[in-house]
Amino acid sequence: MSKYSICLDIGGTKILGVIFDEQGSIVFRLKKKTKAKDGIQNIEDTIVSVVDELLLGFGITLEDVDAIAAGAPGVINQETGVVLFSPNLPWENYEIKRILEARFKVPFYIGNDVNIGVYGEWKYGAAKGLTNVVGLFIGTGMGGGLILDGKLYTGYNCKGAELGHMVLNTEGPRCNCGQRGCLEAFSSKNGMTDYIHQQIKRGRSTLMEDAITEGVFKSKAMKAAYEADDDVMMEAIDRACHYLAVASGSLVNIFSPEMVVYGGGVMEALGDVFLEKIVDQVDAYCMPSIRNSVRFAKAELNDDSILYGALALIHENHNI
Amino acid sequence: MSKYSICLDIGGTKILGVIFDEQGSIVFRLKKKTKAKDGIQNIEDTIVSVVDELLLGFGITLEDVDAIAAGAPGVINQETGVVLFSPNLPWENYEIKRILEARFKVPFYIGNDVNIGVYGEWKYGAAKGLTNVVGLFIGTGMGGGLILDGKLYTGYNCKGAELGHMVLNTEGPRCNCGQRGCLEAFSSKNGMTDYIHQQIKRGRSTLMEDAITEGVFKSKAMKAAYEADDDVMMEAIDRACHYLAVASGSLVNIFSPEMVVYGGGVMEALGDVFLEKIVDQVDAYCMPSIRNSVRFAKAELNDDSILYGALALIHENHNI
Repeated sequence: MSKYSICLDIGGTKILGVIFDEQGSIVFRLKKKTKAKDGIQNIEDTIVSVVDELLLGFGITLEDVDAIAAGAPGVINQETGVVLFSPNLPWENYEIKRILEARFKVPFYIGNDVNIGVYGEWKYGAAKGLTNVVGLFIGTGMGGGLILDGKLYTGYNCKGAELGHMVLNTEGPRCNCGQRGCLEAFSSKNGMTDYIHQQIKRGRSTLMEDAITEGVFKSKAMKAAYEADDDVMMEAIDRACHYLAVASGSLVNIFSPEMVVYGGGVMEALGDVFLEKIVDQVDAYCMPSIRNSVRFAKAELNDDSILYGALALIHENHNI
Repeated sequence: MSKYSICLDIGGTKILGVIFDEQGSIVFRLKKKTKAKDGIQNIEDTIVSVVDELLLGFGITLEDVDAIAAGAPGVINQETGVVLFSPNLPWENYEIKRILEARFKVPFYIGNDVNIGVYGEWKYGAAKGLTNVVGLFIGTGMGGGLILDGKLYTGYNCKGAELGHMVLNTEGPRCNCGQRGCLEAFSSKNGMTDYIHQQIKRGRSTLMEDAITEGVFKSKAMKAAYEADDDVMMEAIDRACHYLAVASGSLVNIFSPEMVVYGGGVMEALGDVFLEKIVDQVDAYCMPSIRNSVRFAKAELNDDSILYGALALIHENHNI
């Protein structure tokens, strides 16, 4: 018997939790703040309290729940449910599946957030019904996901699909990963922020000045500066889209996918504007014979891609 | 009952044909010249005569043969056996499977030469037993092959795995495919030949001058110039290996494969020298966590990779 599913999007600053009904609709949701520096135990307690409050808030018990699933940043072994490493959470070889299954007595599944975000877009969103899909999620960093021959591809030890770390220019800016000129170093919020900082240092003025004093800018500030024709922000966006076009072209030649789907906070804020800037340039970097059969599209599930991907993990594991 | 298999490597200048016994050993081989400009019918006749002469030479008949399989350059639909397009042969939407099965009355299979060359290396060569393998074959052009989750990956309409057309430098030299700065434009014989031409135009002298008057150089001439410490050839090789390292790094980050295997004429001629030059630089372009679990290796089947790949196609289709 199929029942409710609980799905979580565990990030470095917040945990989103939802309840899906058996028709795959979100019937209840809540959000809690979390901080990596809170430590492992506190984060575990927050996850547990999110689940408990979802149950309480919607008025069901664990007996009504088929399974719990989550997406989180980092290198995550989907088979074993072990987080090998996470850039934004204090987890290393963290046996989250074992721990949460012991706590809740229902099956728990977990995958890399962007991997399963693309999985969600494939099962329920923009890429439904296709066989080969490449996904790029443009946020603070740049994550990737691959659906190949109708299956989520993660590579040896689930370490693959690091599409944000394709090297596009060996003389390019230093990336957080240690390489130079990665897609992420040009086209993520981190990369755009660095570019804006450089321009400010050169004495140029921009509406973004206040927005980037603490870490990366918020998508809302980016959108406001874009709408006000802020030169520096415009350049940062154009540069981001140029390198996204280069990377997308290579990915098209590598995979001959039916779709490249773009998600994440930046995409959600700038939407068609951002997509058009990529598509306008991408032809120069795709082989024409392959270009014909690929579509470039915006993610449809927006903030919920990862939650739907978690639902898809449950369905896959329970053969629903 | 498993019997003999006939396998062909159909190229733009020659057709190699072999007979495999049921243990998977090559027991007879021959080679015939072919030219794209001979036209479709002449090439078809040459293929037929290669098969006939293999049978006659080894003293068997078609009744002793399980199947015939081939690798050829171009975009080839493995399911239907139709060559959609070939850069070096006069084939367009050419129904080679239908034609040759009507002629020989035994099953015929065909795939892109480098795709199945990597498949051969995976079934019988350097990458035996692994699950995720990336292959680059460095010859006149630059072909690619992908084994993902234990299966040959070819993408939508078998147009994928064009690893030679990843764009590595948008300001780079023009590639035959129309793009700028593809891996092929730097690191194939075509790319190295263009570089050598440029240096000669600048007044530099090189042992390669005579070797490149007609099209690309032969691997033997490259090796001789390398061994004579020819400056221009050395630079062309270093540049080729630099860009192979950049591309390999990105491919490692994309796939988290267990092995990147390098084949083709250039690799066969320069072997470990060439491989070492790639591996020496590749760390700068791989994420350290993924780099740990990947090996970089030379193809083991050399000139016969594609023939073994064709044998693997037969085994796959006959569930052997």
